Amino acid sequence: MKTPNWILQRAGQTPDRIAISWEDKQWTFREVAERAMDIARKMRGTGLQEGDRVALLTAGGPDTVFLIHGGLLAGFELVMLNSRLTQDELAYQIEDSGAKAVFADDALLERVPDSTAVSHLLSGEGMDFEPVKLWEEDRTLTIMYTSGTTGFPKGVRQTAGNHLSSAVASALNMGLQEGDVWLCAMPLFHISGFSILCRSLIYGMTVRLQTKFDAEASAREIAEGSVTTMSAVSAQLVRVLDILEARNERASGRFRQILAGGGPVPSPYIRRAEALGIRILQTYGMTETSSQTATLAAEDALRKTGSSGKPLFFNRIRIDGAEKPGDEGEILISGPHVTPGYVGRFSDKPAQVDGWLHTGDIGRLDEEGFLFVLDRRSDLIISGGENIYPAEIEQVLVGHPAVAEAGVAGVEDERWGQVPAAFIVGREDVTAEELETFCRERLARYKVPKHFRFVAELPRNASNKLLRRELRTKFDLQE
Amino acid sequence: MKTPNWILQRAGQTPDRIAISWEDKQWTFREVAERAMDIARKMRGTGLQEGDRVALLTAGGPDTVFLIHGGLLAGFELVMLNSRLTQDELAYQIEDSGAKAVFADDALLERVPDSTAVSHLLSGEGMDFEPVKLWEEDRTLTIMYTSGTTGFPKGVRQTAGNHLSSAVASALNMGLQEGDVWLCAMPLFHISGFSILCRSLIYGMTVRLQTKFDAEASAREIAEGSVTTMSAVSAQLVRVLDILEARNERASGRFRQILAGGGPVPSPYIRRAEALGIRILQTYGMTETSSQTATLAAEDALRKTGSSGKPLFFNRIRIDGAEKPGDEGEILISGPHVTPGYVGRFSDKPAQVDGWLHTGDIGRLDEEGFLFVLDRRSDLIISGGENIYPAEIEQVLVGHPAVAEAGVAGVEDERWGQVPAAFIVGREDVTAEELETFCRERLARYKVPKHFRFVAELPRNASNKLLRRELRTKFDLQE
Repeated sequence: MKTPNWILQRAGQTPDRIAISWEDKQWTFREVAERAMDIARKMRGTGLQEGDRVALLTAGGPDTVFLIHGGLLAGFELVMLNSRLTQDELAYQIEDSGAKAVFADDALLERVPDSTAVSHLLSGEGMDFEPVKLWEEDRTLTIMYTSGTTGFPKGVRQTAGNHLSSAVASALNMGLQEGDVWLCAMPLFHISGFSILCRSLIYGMTVRLQTKFDAEASAREIAEGSVTTMSAVSAQLVRVLDILEARNERASGRFRQILAGGGPVPSPYIRRAEALGIRILQTYGMTETSSQTATLAAEDALRKTGSSGKPLFFNRIRIDGAEKPGDEGEILISGPHVTPGYVGRFSDKPAQVDGWLHTGDIGRLDEEGFLFVLDRRSDLIISGGENIYPAEIEQVLVGHPAVAEAGVAGVEDERWGQVPAAFIVGREDVTAEELETFCRERLARYKVPKHFRFVAELPRNASNKLLRRELRTKFDLQE
Repeated sequence: MKTPNWILQRAGQTPDRIAISWEDKQWTFREVAERAMDIARKMRGTGLQEGDRVALLTAGGPDTVFLIHGGLLAGFELVMLNSRLTQDELAYQIEDSGAKAVFADDALLERVPDSTAVSHLLSGEGMDFEPVKLWEEDRTLTIMYTSGTTGFPKGVRQTAGNHLSSAVASALNMGLQEGDVWLCAMPLFHISGFSILCRSLIYGMTVRLQTKFDAEASAREIAEGSVTTMSAVSAQLVRVLDILEARNERASGRFRQILAGGGPVPSPYIRRAEALGIRILQTYGMTETSSQTATLAAEDALRKTGSSGKPLFFNRIRIDGAEKPGDEGEILISGPHVTPGYVGRFSDKPAQVDGWLHTGDIGRLDEEGFLFVLDRRSDLIISGGENIYPAEIEQVLVGHPAVAEAGVAGVEDERWGQVPAAFIVGREDVTAEELETFCRERLARYKVPKHFRFVAELPRNASNKLLRRELRTKFDLQE
């Protein structure tokens, strides 16, 4: 199956509609396509070819959108680097993905490892070429790294078919109206932000862009109705609610919904949102599923609190080993939105077994088919919408000469939902400050443990497997 | 690529939403699925297998919907017979398609050729079986016959992927809102009606069904806002406008649009509709494209009168041989909605050449990419939304012993848009009445020529090809 090159097709279909709005500027689909084509010519002018893999390291905002679309028009597979990563973390992803070049914002250039070819593309000459008119559905558009249980992040391939089926299934579930404007305050290197750009092209919908999440501006736009939908994690949602309540303002009648990902939204938030005229759609998705797999309709938000809803139209969910509704087990996902696999060192690892993605998450389906996610995969910590894997932090910690063993678990945090806490079995004397500094040099800031506890031994089971849930309990007892 | 069985998936997703509303009755998606499953069990109880081809001959209404969904759940390829055809015409399609059985409404049973196995399924015992959970996108769901230039109707395969991409592209273009209700007054054996059933399952949308087009009821529902969208041909549209104008009523604010197919809508109709608060979306589609290929947005309806709009998001259109915008030529269509081919005697005929469907229609694309259809393929006559091919009628006429040669062309008709007119070169004396009776026995009523002219010879070109356009001119001069 093929799909027309989204950027060209959209510019042909609705050239004069607003594609991107940012601060007080806006660009039509024709203008975005023209800027992207200009960038694509410069990118190809560096000698890179159709099908090459390149990495993007950017700070967000409209220039990042033009760069992304330029890279897609140039025919590249885009490795979407998280700008919060350290140089070491970036070096791993660039090396692992085999990216031939990194296109970075000037402000981020110093973070790019010296060994990598950095292209200062925008000053280049450019080369005329004809972008392909059709994309095969199995064409890889993006690669996003997600940390794994081993501590080595895995590069997830996201194809045109993955993004397309995700965007379409979302529209079938949430509807689509003339004049829809999606507020994007999520990073564009994340699937949460990138998927909004895909929807914009496929729906012909305006994206209202924030370079970084701005709670004040978000609350204002929701109240004014200059946006109709927003994606948010709980930590962002509650800040928007606080502001609206403090100002005694409500959502405009034009504002339709907030799509809330990155863990369940507590029911008090849902009630507060409802009182302000805001519908909350809770969703369950991940990098491997190019955004939403299941989404809870607003009408079921209170009746099914804690649920992530039903699978979207093209998708199926089943619970491994479940014999009846309510049985708990690993959540398995099937559908055209599921990644075909990984790149780099995990390229041999199958992403699906008999057509099913094994998420590692534990959940259950109730009698009506609503999904409840009970425990995130492999003790995943979700902190302000960012995924953090304990194993990755533990691996850094045991690299410190004073650390014999390390165990990391997510603990409650009022602002971020969860934060990582580290439990250390020492080899020699070391302070929390020293370990924090050590981590900061090697890990993105949001991954650095907020708490350090020194213990005599770590809880392990008979086969010596670390019991991270017991760490969490131990932490709660100490607080 | 696979897609979940739409009937089961929809019943799982929104079981309590209204699927079908008809007269004063309504059925939820769960109820429709249950009824369809009951029928499927009875169908399979006759010994028919998954993948078998069966024909449906029905009069429309909710029982037809249950029968169609039952046939799909049973795993059959459905040959959708036009209930207006004669016994001879039906016999051809049943034989050509290789249908193993015909499921017919009692009232239509006498029209089924004696040679065919007719199953009185609803009285049967039924057989328990598990319907397949996934449909391959290249699975044939339906076969619809469309007349061809040779006079032999061709059985067009329509796959799950064809119907799905058509429905999705339509939603991306027209939008999709909670509470949408599509008024279906089109025959369900036509792609115009069947495509509404597909949209209903894929969108989770209510269909308001009319067994036969009812202008009074349509006008009332549009005025009351109990429906939000309607499909119509020009001849139906104008009757609805007449009624609303006579009653001095307007469309409800909830009513969004009329999707108008089967030839261009004259601009006076568009203006009258606009004055009544009705947006007209003109569309260009055919059996081979499972409904819409291009649709003109309401906002462009007057600026681009006569145009069928731009291709929908997944589709492309090009004009064969055109070197610049405005050049005329054969309309070629590419996209996932294009049939993979035909069944029966035309199963060897490729439907696409290098991925493009050659429609036989003549058109042009303007500078902005809007399609103008200038002449329908092979002198196609469109009469009240039904496609009529002159060759098919000519072939019947020359079967009469008194007819030496026959030429048929479409001529203007106030009520039907066009009707067929026959030009006869006689071998011996014969009256128009005799020929009309002869045709009525062999052709669906709408195909029987409304005018007969006896001439000394037919206009032909140097290679002896009949010039049907000259017939039309000749007719206009005589009137």
